Amino acid sequence: MIIVTSQAITEEQWANLCKRLEDLEFQIHVIQGVEKKVIGAVGDKRRVDFRFLENIPGVEKVIPILSPYKLVSREIKPEGTTIEVGKLKIGGGSFGIVAGPCAVESEEQLLQAAEGIKAAGGDGLRGGAFKPRTSPYSFQGLEEEGLKLLAKAREKTGLPVITELMNLTELDLVEEYTDIIQIGARNMQNFGLLRAVGRCSKPVLLKRGLAATIEEWLMAAEYIMAEGNHQVILCERGIRTFETATRNTLDLSAVPLVKSLTHLPVVVDPSHGTGKRKLVLPMAKAAVVSGADGLLIEVHPDPAHAWSDGEQSLDIPDFQRLVGSVRQLVKWREADDSVSAATAQG
Amino acid sequence: MIIVTSQAITEEQWANLCKRLEDLEFQIHVIQGVEKKVIGAVGDKRRVDFRFLENIPGVEKVIPILSPYKLVSREIKPEGTTIEVGKLKIGGGSFGIVAGPCAVESEEQLLQAAEGIKAAGGDGLRGGAFKPRTSPYSFQGLEEEGLKLLAKAREKTGLPVITELMNLTELDLVEEYTDIIQIGARNMQNFGLLRAVGRCSKPVLLKRGLAATIEEWLMAAEYIMAEGNHQVILCERGIRTFETATRNTLDLSAVPLVKSLTHLPVVVDPSHGTGKRKLVLPMAKAAVVSGADGLLIEVHPDPAHAWSDGEQSLDIPDFQRLVGSVRQLVKWREADDSVSAATAQG
Amino acid sequence: MIIVTSQAITEEQWANLCKRLEDLEFQIHVIQGVEKKVIGAVGDKRRVDFRFLENIPGVEKVIPILSPYKLVSREIKPEGTTIEVGKLKIGGGSFGIVAGPCAVESEEQLLQAAEGIKAAGGDGLRGGAFKPRTSPYSFQGLEEEGLKLLAKAREKTGLPVITELMNLTELDLVEEYTDIIQIGARNMQNFGLLRAVGRCSKPVLLKRGLAATIEEWLMAAEYIMAEGNHQVILCERGIRTFETATRNTLDLSAVPLVKSLTHLPVVVDPSHGTGKRKLVLPMAKAAVVSGADGLLIEVHPDPAHAWSDGEQSLDIPDFQRLVGSVRQLVKWREADDSVSAATAQG
Amino acid sequence: MIIVTSQAITEEQWANLCKRLEDLEFQIHVIQGVEKKVIGAVGDKRRVDFRFLENIPGVEKVIPILSPYKLVSREIKPEGTTIEVGKLKIGGGSFGIVAGPCAVESEEQLLQAAEGIKAAGGDGLRGGAFKPRTSPYSFQGLEEEGLKLLAKAREKTGLPVITELMNLTELDLVEEYTDIIQIGARNMQNFGLLRAVGRCSKPVLLKRGLAATIEEWLMAAEYIMAEGNHQVILCERGIRTFETATRNTLDLSAVPLVKSLTHLPVVVDPSHGTGKRKLVLPMAKAAVVSGADGLLIEVHPDPAHAWSDGEQSLDIPDFQRLVGSVRQLVKWREADDSVSAATAQG
Repeated sequence: MIIVTSQAITEEQWANLCKRLEDLEFQIHVIQGVEKKVIGAVGDKRRVDFRFLENIPGVEKVIPILSPYKLVSREIKPEGTTIEVGKLKIGGGSFGIVAGPCAVESEEQLLQAAEGIKAAGGDGLRGGAFKPRTSPYSFQGLEEEGLKLLAKAREKTGLPVITELMNLTELDLVEEYTDIIQIGARNMQNFGLLRAVGRCSKPVLLKRGLAATIEEWLMAAEYIMAEGNHQVILCERGIRTFETATRNTLDLSAVPLVKSLTHLPVVVDPSHGTGKRKLVLPMAKAAVVSGADGLLIEVHPDPAHAWSDGEQSLDIPDFQRLVGSVRQLVKWREADDSVSAATAQG
Repeated sequence: MIIVTSQAITEEQWANLCKRLEDLEFQIHVIQGVEKKVIGAVGDKRRVDFRFLENIPGVEKVIPILSPYKLVSREIKPEGTTIEVGKLKIGGGSFGIVAGPCAVESEEQLLQAAEGIKAAGGDGLRGGAFKPRTSPYSFQGLEEEGLKLLAKAREKTGLPVITELMNLTELDLVEEYTDIIQIGARNMQNFGLLRAVGRCSKPVLLKRGLAATIEEWLMAAEYIMAEGNHQVILCERGIRTFETATRNTLDLSAVPLVKSLTHLPVVVDPSHGTGKRKLVLPMAKAAVVSGADGLLIEVHPDPAHAWSDGEQSLDIPDFQRLVGSVRQLVKWREADDSVSAATAQG
Repeated sequence: MIIVTSQAITEEQWANLCKRLEDLEFQIHVIQGVEKKVIGAVGDKRRVDFRFLENIPGVEKVIPILSPYKLVSREIKPEGTTIEVGKLKIGGGSFGIVAGPCAVESEEQLLQAAEGIKAAGGDGLRGGAFKPRTSPYSFQGLEEEGLKLLAKAREKTGLPVITELMNLTELDLVEEYTDIIQIGARNMQNFGLLRAVGRCSKPVLLKRGLAATIEEWLMAAEYIMAEGNHQVILCERGIRTFETATRNTLDLSAVPLVKSLTHLPVVVDPSHGTGKRKLVLPMAKAAVVSGADGLLIEVHPDPAHAWSDGEQSLDIPDFQRLVGSVRQLVKWREADDSVSAATAQG
Repeated sequence: MIIVTSQAITEEQWANLCKRLEDLEFQIHVIQGVEKKVIGAVGDKRRVDFRFLENIPGVEKVIPILSPYKLVSREIKPEGTTIEVGKLKIGGGSFGIVAGPCAVESEEQLLQAAEGIKAAGGDGLRGGAFKPRTSPYSFQGLEEEGLKLLAKAREKTGLPVITELMNLTELDLVEEYTDIIQIGARNMQNFGLLRAVGRCSKPVLLKRGLAATIEEWLMAAEYIMAEGNHQVILCERGIRTFETATRNTLDLSAVPLVKSLTHLPVVVDPSHGTGKRKLVLPMAKAAVVSGADGLLIEVHPDPAHAWSDGEQSLDIPDFQRLVGSVRQLVKWREADDSVSAATAQG
């Protein structure tokens, strides 16, 4: 940690500051700059937030040196983590395509979707039984009924199922039916929920929050891993910016950046990331060559009649075309020898 | 709702679109523009999200006309709502100052804070027993122990207590001890939590999310009111922008804007809003004259030793100065006759 | 244009509003909604900003229907525009790779860069002679000397040259030496400069502003085209968001979106877009499959000694690898049959 | 400057890095942390951008310690700067109110505005003769004719005049007619323009860019001062964020923050900052108590017929009410003894 002191620091303030740091068991290294004195405070203190030191009279700024996460860090696990559920493999060189409707609406809709996805070459089935909706008056999901339909669709198709957990109180229910538990963007810093799924035995897909920095996203994953569950998949799904022409701004450069920082796999959701059906295919392809480990795609057998998010859902034939192109690019990527060491570690 | 069709819409697509709208029980008004045909679709459909219509072939854009909220709207309740708990009154012309430490740390710390705040003229006591922290390794709050200390501080000082509820599983516990339930910025769209406090009998302070638009914030309040709890206080606490010189960007113009849209009271938290102690006082004063109904201020008896957020906490003497200035401005504001009708409704 | 009136509009206000619209030569269509009256105002008024109508008493909101640009629109020119300078072809199915140092530093540096780029398979040479720098104390470019070196490098390698114009006063000078005139992100709304290059005979590369919406970016291109210069290349180079882990947030989904709106070619600058050397290659590849018409890459013969932007510059061997991969992907893209009609128009 | 090295740095890389720093005439202080080695590099190098060092193999991050500006800094001039033009005084304890129409439209409009503003108690007249407009088809200003009308209005009312300079080529013209030269938000980093007004003898009002950080804004002022013109007024006018309910997000906390960093006066433009007429008054009052040195207010004798920005313009009676309230608050502020030392320096 680096502590920059103000030019006007008094001798008494300096003495107090040094004493405080010693009480906190830091070793102190003083650098006398041209205008300011700077302290290098050495100690294994990754786990404490020392911004409060900015509050000590005479201190101008506190600059942490170590990243605040540990378990998610690629430094402690250089090879990539693979998450494997049935035939769905994500990470460590494997690329998984998960697709399905925004919301489970009915048996007919879900089975049609699932069978279409299976036939088109998808690896997993997504679908919401509990839906986070901006309006209390919008359709909120079929709840347990929806979970049962997902299980039925898995039985019929063999596709592993991923669905969102919204509330602690529904954890047992969701865990019983799903193969992968999704934590949505709005819950990325719902720390109670993160801890709870950290004690589950099923993998967790953690969506990036709308306004979450990459560091906060990794810290959310650290919450899950700190409880013992090391099976975490990160999902980039767009961030909120000033641009309103797209629903969100898909931050694709986060993919290679995050993969250089963590061993966890990173997938991309271009459906929520763009909010526009015609952008899903180009962004899915871009995700592959940027280094993603998989995709989450909204697919509906009849998007024009979807109860939610129809404007960003593909129909089955479009999804089939997407799978075809994406698989080709995954193959191309495996043969591509341009990738530098920094981003290659799978 | 206005539906803009694309220039290239075919006759068949047009017929399908009209049929779909009729099925949804809309009356259709067609406007033939210079380049495009536009449909005005009339019907009381506030409660449904019709963006999915953008998915119908030939549709370019769907533009809703009515605001999506109803119960929070000033249109249906022109006079302002007042929230009253003991001597703390917020809204409808009353101005309340709630203060306290970020986290309850110990009996000594909390009682010192509470007594100092009481003596300085504060109206309520805030303090966190469950803390949302970015890192799983940071101090997470004293939990039930903290709630008990808050109750003790209330007993000693008579100040009503406000504390954050983070998880559904802690609702009964928090409701038992607190006077006002706080929903934090990270939980503003934790819809399960919103519904649950909507069934409580205690007032709810709803912080604006880091990346929440004003409309989303009002919709979150609508969630609470839709369950029957009409005692909601909105709290502006800064939004996330590109500027990093402050912790957040305090959006003060949201105060008069929101007050023109809703009858609910709006308070401001300049401590989280700026993240810097020296900005708390000027922004507290600015909040008053912008029309706020109250303040939430972080106060710690010894900020340099605070376990969290010390860098933005005032000590008791600074808080006393703030209360003095703020009370003068509240009085000034009452006599100020410049206020236009649009923002005057209290 | 749609005009939403407020519920409280008086008869007199309504009459005034209608009269005003008639004076402006609009045809009026009234739609009586459930709660509000809405006016559809028809007229070929694309070229006027009618937001001022919101100022008329009784008006709540004005919603334009037509996009504000015309010449840049794909609607009036469905086939894609190709910009061709020597062997460099951008747009209409052709993919061009332009590379070079951020700043021209010396003859040796520039010629080394140019020859390396030529050998590696680049199509054009970029380099700054006038540099926009945040600090007045940073190196500001070699100015005319730099332009002469660019001309010399063109002579030696045959690569067409692109360089930034910062001030109206340097237009003649820059136009004399360069093949393509670059307008930088900070000048995207320097309207005097846009008009001036709109009267030049050389193509213009228009970078997207840091905080520019896609609509504003297209309007800036409309400024150039309105003066008669139809040779405009758009360049996505990242927008400013809350995320600081990258220098900017590269908005790749803007590529297919913009290409659906305009016939102008779109290139991507992943060097400025990410600010990190290790992200340039993955984002360059992602740009290709997202539909871009070319790339702008910062290349320096010795990045560790670059005078500016070294942290995001590739050296020649890395650039060579990039060209190899990118060319393969361009070829793959040509054979890819998944592309939907919406984004295929080259 | 602090240089954080990567854990994997080799001995050779370390030696190279140290040699490079010595060549740049830095003194080197090494701190051996628990996981990483950190270098404190000491030298008076404020004027160079050393981010390029991140490019040296083995370097992870470069953290500057000194702020990059000097002349604007309050550290070198603790007392506040006052800008004085006739009876208009801004800064150093004086509060100035400048008002006027967005664009000069006609003699009648401008004189009516100027006389109304004068009578209402305004201190200066603003008005645009050259207008930056998003669309090339919108009204672009009366140009020289507009400047002459501004001069005429000054003659009639005695109010000093402020108008925007958009292009270098119009500098002489604008300087001849105006009292204060305005640099608009879109030109905040038009460095050629900044240098040019830095050589003028008239004060410059520098608006903050839509996406400019506080540091970049101060660096833009440094550009002007570095050329010799020390009469700079900073103007906060809102930044671009995800919120679209207001035209921009007025960053009022920037006022006390910037005033703690610089001796230059800071004024606020709530008209552009909010884009909504009903928010101008509350934000003007909030600006006063947050510590601003003045206001820029859009006033039009007949906002409903304004050619631009009518939706955010006050009429004369509303402006008069604003002046009344604002003057009272300025007086209140002078008597307010709560202000802490940090923000009091005038």
